[in-house]
Amino acid sequence: MANWNNLDTLKSYDALKKVAKVDLVSAMTGAAGAERVKKYSVGMAAGMSFNYAAKEVDDNVLAALEELAKEAELTDKYAALYNGEVINTGEKRMVLHQLTRGQLGEDVVADGVNKREFYVKEQKRIADFANKVHSGEIANAKGEKFTTVVQIGIGGSDLGPRAMYLALENWAKRTGNFKMEAKFISNVDPDDASAVLASIDVAHSIFILVSKSGTTLETLTNESFVIDALKKAGLDSSKHMIAVTSETSPLAKSDNYLEAFFMDDYIGGRYSSTSGVGGAVLSLAFGPDVFAQFLEGAAEEDKLATNKNLLENPAMLDALIGVYERNVLGYGSTAVLPYSQGLSRFPAHLQQLDMESNGKSVNRFGEPIDYVTGPVIFGEPGTNGQHSFYQLLHQGTDIIPLQFIGFKNSQLQNDVNIQDSTSQQKLCANVAAQIVAFACGKKDENLNKNFKGGRPSSIIIGDELNPKSLGALLAHFENKVMFQGFVWNINSFDQEGVQLGKVLAKKVLAHETDGALAEYSKLLNI
Amino acid sequence: MANWNNLDTLKSYDALKKVAKVDLVSAMTGAAGAERVKKYSVGMAAGMSFNYAAKEVDDNVLAALEELAKEAELTDKYAALYNGEVINTGEKRMVLHQLTRGQLGEDVVADGVNKREFYVKEQKRIADFANKVHSGEIANAKGEKFTTVVQIGIGGSDLGPRAMYLALENWAKRTGNFKMEAKFISNVDPDDASAVLASIDVAHSIFILVSKSGTTLETLTNESFVIDALKKAGLDSSKHMIAVTSETSPLAKSDNYLEAFFMDDYIGGRYSSTSGVGGAVLSLAFGPDVFAQFLEGAAEEDKLATNKNLLENPAMLDALIGVYERNVLGYGSTAVLPYSQGLSRFPAHLQQLDMESNGKSVNRFGEPIDYVTGPVIFGEPGTNGQHSFYQLLHQGTDIIPLQFIGFKNSQLQNDVNIQDSTSQQKLCANVAAQIVAFACGKKDENLNKNFKGGRPSSIIIGDELNPKSLGALLAHFENKVMFQGFVWNINSFDQEGVQLGKVLAKKVLAHETDGALAEYSKLLNI
Repeated sequence: MANWNNLDTLKSYDALKKVAKVDLVSAMTGAAGAERVKKYSVGMAAGMSFNYAAKEVDDNVLAALEELAKEAELTDKYAALYNGEVINTGEKRMVLHQLTRGQLGEDVVADGVNKREFYVKEQKRIADFANKVHSGEIANAKGEKFTTVVQIGIGGSDLGPRAMYLALENWAKRTGNFKMEAKFISNVDPDDASAVLASIDVAHSIFILVSKSGTTLETLTNESFVIDALKKAGLDSSKHMIAVTSETSPLAKSDNYLEAFFMDDYIGGRYSSTSGVGGAVLSLAFGPDVFAQFLEGAAEEDKLATNKNLLENPAMLDALIGVYERNVLGYGSTAVLPYSQGLSRFPAHLQQLDMESNGKSVNRFGEPIDYVTGPVIFGEPGTNGQHSFYQLLHQGTDIIPLQFIGFKNSQLQNDVNIQDSTSQQKLCANVAAQIVAFACGKKDENLNKNFKGGRPSSIIIGDELNPKSLGALLAHFENKVMFQGFVWNINSFDQEGVQLGKVLAKKVLAHETDGALAEYSKLLNI
Repeated sequence: MANWNNLDTLKSYDALKKVAKVDLVSAMTGAAGAERVKKYSVGMAAGMSFNYAAKEVDDNVLAALEELAKEAELTDKYAALYNGEVINTGEKRMVLHQLTRGQLGEDVVADGVNKREFYVKEQKRIADFANKVHSGEIANAKGEKFTTVVQIGIGGSDLGPRAMYLALENWAKRTGNFKMEAKFISNVDPDDASAVLASIDVAHSIFILVSKSGTTLETLTNESFVIDALKKAGLDSSKHMIAVTSETSPLAKSDNYLEAFFMDDYIGGRYSSTSGVGGAVLSLAFGPDVFAQFLEGAAEEDKLATNKNLLENPAMLDALIGVYERNVLGYGSTAVLPYSQGLSRFPAHLQQLDMESNGKSVNRFGEPIDYVTGPVIFGEPGTNGQHSFYQLLHQGTDIIPLQFIGFKNSQLQNDVNIQDSTSQQKLCANVAAQIVAFACGKKDENLNKNFKGGRPSSIIIGDELNPKSLGALLAHFENKVMFQGFVWNINSFDQEGVQLGKVLAKKVLAHETDGALAEYSKLLNI
């Protein structure tokens, strides 16, 4: 059994605070800088690598982080998780999302069911269903093929699957794997559902209702929008809708759906892209084989995270450098900057994954803690961000650690050559330039044009954004967040902080309010 | 002439730091909270209001902020700006974006031209052009009407216009003002241009090349993509493209464009949505009358910002509360949370507007400063955000000030009634509930379910998101950022922090690198 202790009780944490800080400007300048770029790199799945040369670390800091990893028993805790211990202490649940893509440890049995077999069975059911939709065996009332799939879900049922769909859409179009267009309805704002419904041909659309509990207010409300639209078009909604839900939810055995696919309480919404929550929409959009490659990339990355050697474990290394930046160096936020248009919504997914998991003020036993936990996560694709908020990143008064992602090749592989370089080369040149500009800066007597440098970044580099590398990227960040939660001794798998707002919103709608809430309700005409 | 002094030299700033802090939980609970909601509100243009009841202010803090506004001479500095003083000290330029929508002060003449007349003339030229496109007088080679407009630009030529287009698209569809679909190409990633071009009918598309200098690398590269696509379709690109640029740029008098519309050096990219940069695409998409209403809303809001009384000046009040949160209370970031799907990209625009303007470490005279300036800005629409990063906002270890925006009515006015309320009512109930949940919290013996509260927010409430209210919103935030820059004594109108990356990227492409940069270039296959 692993020992669960608060970060500030660990000897290695005290030792870490005492290690001499790295002067990033001098470390990254000249031949020494070149050496760091070659040395401070670790392989990831799908041929990718995590390069941390431009982080404020050196061999001494890394040795101290290695001690911290050992004292916090990080890989033991990971093993406890994938072997089925109740890691989600708040909700008293196991945490099994890794089992959707592979089996790292012992068989995990719950309610008499082998959970790996359960997830694989659901994947196969989804694959069969998707194949039948693609072949036309499952079709609309006129026997015509479905051409569009619409996911109805919010939070983890929306952000992850949407980001993954956008990340693979262009790749699939180039490689002949594009089967159906996907759309997403999430917000309770009626303009969201109305606009999506107006943009599609409902007669050739299949809708996926995604809600683990089957009670998510936004999702059920948006389902009504869709049912209305189908009725108005003279269509039988039960022939156009499927559900992804838990076996115990009201949606599970309802005649309102063509089919229901199952997940369970051991997979949190923000960790559900590799379950049926992502599986149904991605298998319909790109085919089950593409989804299988995505799972394969995630499984390989999960395996790398079991390595006890910090320098050979990219997720654990990324996690510990992040803790060092947050708790020792005192940085409050992290920017995620993918140099890939396909990853346009990946930062929004990581924002949920990280902030909802680790935005906590009590430890896993419900006791207060005296150190900071999860940072603010934000980001936009480069080079767009360069022409936006990078000014503050370069010359603002706070230091913001940066997480770059770049690929050698584009997805559509359609390019132009201007001034002796392709757009893809320009894109890659920009990310390389930014890393060095942030780290080294540039002296100028005019302080307005002076760059202090010393602004840390890492980069994940891959050949191409495709199903396998995307799966690996996703798993890397899931595991990074998990390791950070272990270091902070918090429960990264519940989200009690979202409850109070729901309770109060119900009171507003029931007109059971007083005080400030009653006044705000008046102002908003409720 | 106004006196420009660093914030930490002002007596009123010292006094502000000494004012007793507000306990937001007790202030917002019970009848006192209800009183605050009624009292701490100020009118904005287009019937909107800015409500700051849930901010950590009381009459004492507000009095101290009023003193700060006076000592920093904020409205005098605003007057200096709109009367044509050289406020952009770094680039030695006037700052005239307000003149694109109204004349608040004296005539401003530059290069022998009355600038208000110049901007109005360009608006009229754009309106004439848009009307001719809509009527079919300007058409493609076959005499067919253009149906799609594609903006090619990056940074301020993309984020603002894109956010404004998305904000009005549904409103325009409902009200019969939707003339042409708009698309945007921004990133140098070749997948961006390729995907947009594959999604449109180029034969019926008109492209707007937007670059003030006419030399923006990303934009010129993407122009080549478009010219290639037009050529491949057997079309004359010069009959499908217009330019928005400065009169001195290489694009200004080129035969490559059907027409060129002009802006000038006195309008920064991030402040250019009300100039031709936003004007061309919005006038083509929705018609010149809609664009005129948008300008009208902005002009009214600009006028409100001239009020010397802090409590009657929403932008100045918002700005000063933000400075108090940043410099006295020590909060490092601010979340922008519009409860409106139409404002889905408004936070991304504000992220540029704010972080590029005020992410500075030297004052307007190029001297170092010893206090923090612009915060990190991020956000997503509610209720989506509630199911994502709100966990950290409610229970994380850092306090993040929040900026809510809500409207009583939806844009498409298509709704469903579920459990006795419409989606729009649910949306509004949620934002009301969140404000009170953040401010007041809720005690629970189980600390994992405990909400400390004390998390400050403001809300802007309007009847509907339409051209006028959108213009007012935009101007509110532009003016807020401007006032904060004045308080911090920085130049909010240059962006020297983006230069170093550009210089280094050119070196990479010319293979003139050594050290770390050469190694990163190798890793990225450049």
